[in-house]
Amino acid sequence: MDTLTENTGLYTDYYELTMAQGYFLSSKENEQTVFDYYYRTNPYEGGYLIFAGLQDLLQILKNFSYSKENIEFLKKTGLKDEFLEYLKDFKFTATVYSMKEGEIVFPNEPLVRVEGNIIEAQLIETLLLNYLNFQSLIATKACRIRNVIGDKDFADFGLRRAQGLGGIHASRAAVIGGANTTSNVYSAFNYEIPLTGTQAHAWIQSFDYELEAFRRYAEINPDSTVLLVDTYNTLKSGVPNAIIVAKELEAKGYKMIGIRLDSGDLAYLSKKARKMLNEAGLEYVKIIASNQLNEYVIKSLNDQGAQIDGYGIGTELVTGKDAGALDGVYKLVQNNGIPRLKISENIEKITMPGKKKVIRYFDEDGMFFRDGILLENEESTNRLFHPFHSHKHTYVTGFSSEELMSKVMENGKILIENQSPVEINAYVRKRFAQLPDEHKRFISPHIYKVGFSENILSVRDHILMDLRSKIRE
Amino acid sequence: MDTLTENTGLYTDYYELTMAQGYFLSSKENEQTVFDYYYRTNPYEGGYLIFAGLQDLLQILKNFSYSKENIEFLKKTGLKDEFLEYLKDFKFTATVYSMKEGEIVFPNEPLVRVEGNIIEAQLIETLLLNYLNFQSLIATKACRIRNVIGDKDFADFGLRRAQGLGGIHASRAAVIGGANTTSNVYSAFNYEIPLTGTQAHAWIQSFDYELEAFRRYAEINPDSTVLLVDTYNTLKSGVPNAIIVAKELEAKGYKMIGIRLDSGDLAYLSKKARKMLNEAGLEYVKIIASNQLNEYVIKSLNDQGAQIDGYGIGTELVTGKDAGALDGVYKLVQNNGIPRLKISENIEKITMPGKKKVIRYFDEDGMFFRDGILLENEESTNRLFHPFHSHKHTYVTGFSSEELMSKVMENGKILIENQSPVEINAYVRKRFAQLPDEHKRFISPHIYKVGFSENILSVRDHILMDLRSKIRE
Repeated sequence: MDTLTENTGLYTDYYELTMAQGYFLSSKENEQTVFDYYYRTNPYEGGYLIFAGLQDLLQILKNFSYSKENIEFLKKTGLKDEFLEYLKDFKFTATVYSMKEGEIVFPNEPLVRVEGNIIEAQLIETLLLNYLNFQSLIATKACRIRNVIGDKDFADFGLRRAQGLGGIHASRAAVIGGANTTSNVYSAFNYEIPLTGTQAHAWIQSFDYELEAFRRYAEINPDSTVLLVDTYNTLKSGVPNAIIVAKELEAKGYKMIGIRLDSGDLAYLSKKARKMLNEAGLEYVKIIASNQLNEYVIKSLNDQGAQIDGYGIGTELVTGKDAGALDGVYKLVQNNGIPRLKISENIEKITMPGKKKVIRYFDEDGMFFRDGILLENEESTNRLFHPFHSHKHTYVTGFSSEELMSKVMENGKILIENQSPVEINAYVRKRFAQLPDEHKRFISPHIYKVGFSENILSVRDHILMDLRSKIRE
Repeated sequence: MDTLTENTGLYTDYYELTMAQGYFLSSKENEQTVFDYYYRTNPYEGGYLIFAGLQDLLQILKNFSYSKENIEFLKKTGLKDEFLEYLKDFKFTATVYSMKEGEIVFPNEPLVRVEGNIIEAQLIETLLLNYLNFQSLIATKACRIRNVIGDKDFADFGLRRAQGLGGIHASRAAVIGGANTTSNVYSAFNYEIPLTGTQAHAWIQSFDYELEAFRRYAEINPDSTVLLVDTYNTLKSGVPNAIIVAKELEAKGYKMIGIRLDSGDLAYLSKKARKMLNEAGLEYVKIIASNQLNEYVIKSLNDQGAQIDGYGIGTELVTGKDAGALDGVYKLVQNNGIPRLKISENIEKITMPGKKKVIRYFDEDGMFFRDGILLENEESTNRLFHPFHSHKHTYVTGFSSEELMSKVMENGKILIENQSPVEINAYVRKRFAQLPDEHKRFISPHIYKVGFSENILSVRDHILMDLRSKIRE
């Protein structure tokens, strides 16, 4: 269930509407087009992307429409009556092919393919990019963080620093990528995600004494007590008071869950706190850390032997720092059966024409070996080529393989079953285990090779020659 | 009008609910508290912040409630029946004081003050931070960009790369900070923002020839034609074809608005294109540039004499790159009439206790001189002090001054009139002109001084001493 259910048809850039009007007034509305969604650069200088956001996208495509009020608004923006008449009953009926949500994917391979009339395929460009770019960005960040956290607890604490309502999708994507739980109640309600929470400084400040605040919290929540210990002084006040309360809980037959450190040096404080807890016989009390964490800080804390059992991660997770955005694009690759491309001033922005499929090849250990992009009607290929340097190629004959995209929507109907973020994460984990370690490195990861079939490159080169001759004319 | 109108009470962190339940079960629900919203560090290593997001915040506070379905969900999360019974009829009735939306503000000064019972003041923490942190971040980015663009056109093109639904608030904040227009139809509808748009490569690719695509677009939109000229080759194909179409429009009595460059070197291409257009007598045709722009790139393009008349700015604007988030916090500063603080392990995170007001002092030219933070019941002060180094102080006697916060909500009613983002931007411009230039520098801007009255520091020091003696016990 996505949160944007009204005014869905307005969730777009204005030029999609003026272009759609142009197609309509040029009697192009029945031209059949194919658009590809793909991205060019892995975020975080990493070696992969976790593809996410598909289910939310399909929901909004299903609901995509224009209310009477919307039409009136669009009239005021200058769109013409004949076209607005057409928009009144507009429904998205294109066929959508896609990677599985949670798939590990790589630059330049089509992740989603939309086949439909040129108006419907055009109108949804902005929202498709908005949904998929962001959730993939965050799922990938979460996967990187999970990779250094191992099996410890990892909670999303980001809503307060999320980019406005982006926080709703961020928490979903965080769990797809690897967080166990979220503090975000809205997303937990919307997407079935397990909730988590401790307490804020305000709770402690609202009492005269920290010990009183801790005691009261434990009384009310005896089986889920995590105490925030840094309001006044972590080692001189917070931890000693938490130990008193843990012992009182023990006397009543309860075990305190943990304490939370939220400032200061987490390596130093966690080691000291662990020692104090253990000396009090409280080995089972966990130490949870929060405060400006990311995958690099956690790795460094691990290296220093920090005694942390769980992490609450906010800002850097839900904003996808330092990437901020994924550079995904949505490009027309075929119109009325004719493959199309654009050249642009930047060579790497040349699009790959035609209807394509993506094949993943596996080595003898079942690990990812190469991805190949073929024309949709090619059965198989012997060799995969670099897109620009044809002397760079790899034989893939004999490798086991899997086709990665499948039909997920047709004629307004969603063809896949709804999965919770936790279920999608199970797929991420399975696939992540098949990704060779050298692609997971934070610094200069090995580039996973994505090659093209000879046929697809020859279609491209043919169109390029043709275009260049037209330009010379 | 804000977009989040349902499930508003769930737009929070789970711990706000468990704490609220704790207050309720501890019979603290009528304790009167005061919370301050403030931030600690200017984003983008800049010298100021544009405060934004207030109207959306007041809207969601007005609508803040729990539906029957929400209550059922919360029951499953483990909250207790008595508290859920209380939540059923929950309304936000606290009094809110705030800076004007669009005010230029500085670290550590209260921007919003919430006075209410401890449950209502606590429950809204997360959503207040989520709304204000993000819109202020983006409005500030837009203001920085406007500062280098001067009076030229500046359009927000960001929705496709925005952080999911965060794009809705981003476009609003972009216009508050300085963009003239947006491509985001949803936000234009929601917030009354002027729309803008050109066309995408797909339009051109859907025709056999670029010239045909340009002609057709101009026929349909003769008085709003901006042609994207980089699909095949900017200088050999795009610009020459645009010139043909501009001349054809002239023959029909129309003037083409412009061309858009979206790849390649914008300084080089804009100068060449300007020359070609001028040689064809098309001095009036504007050159619009887009593609990974930010304030630094634009400054550099200006320095190189690029011939650009308008900018479309996306990713970096709507994601607030490189900051990604504003570090705003919401802290309890008074409970039941008693000023409170927290100490934390980081000295700069000590909160400033009590109910406070902010006074801005102006120099003889009407420029911002200092901001002062006083206790709310202090009439005035002679001197402003550094919070930690009391030998650093400034006399402010005789300067003209203005109190910055006012009451904006009371008993569930919004007390300020709704303003459009363009109207709020008028206030930003007025105030920006009063901010001395040295605070506007991109590199090492001068720090604007915010000082405290002697009384407020003595309240703080008194509580600190008291807390330290308790810790020693």
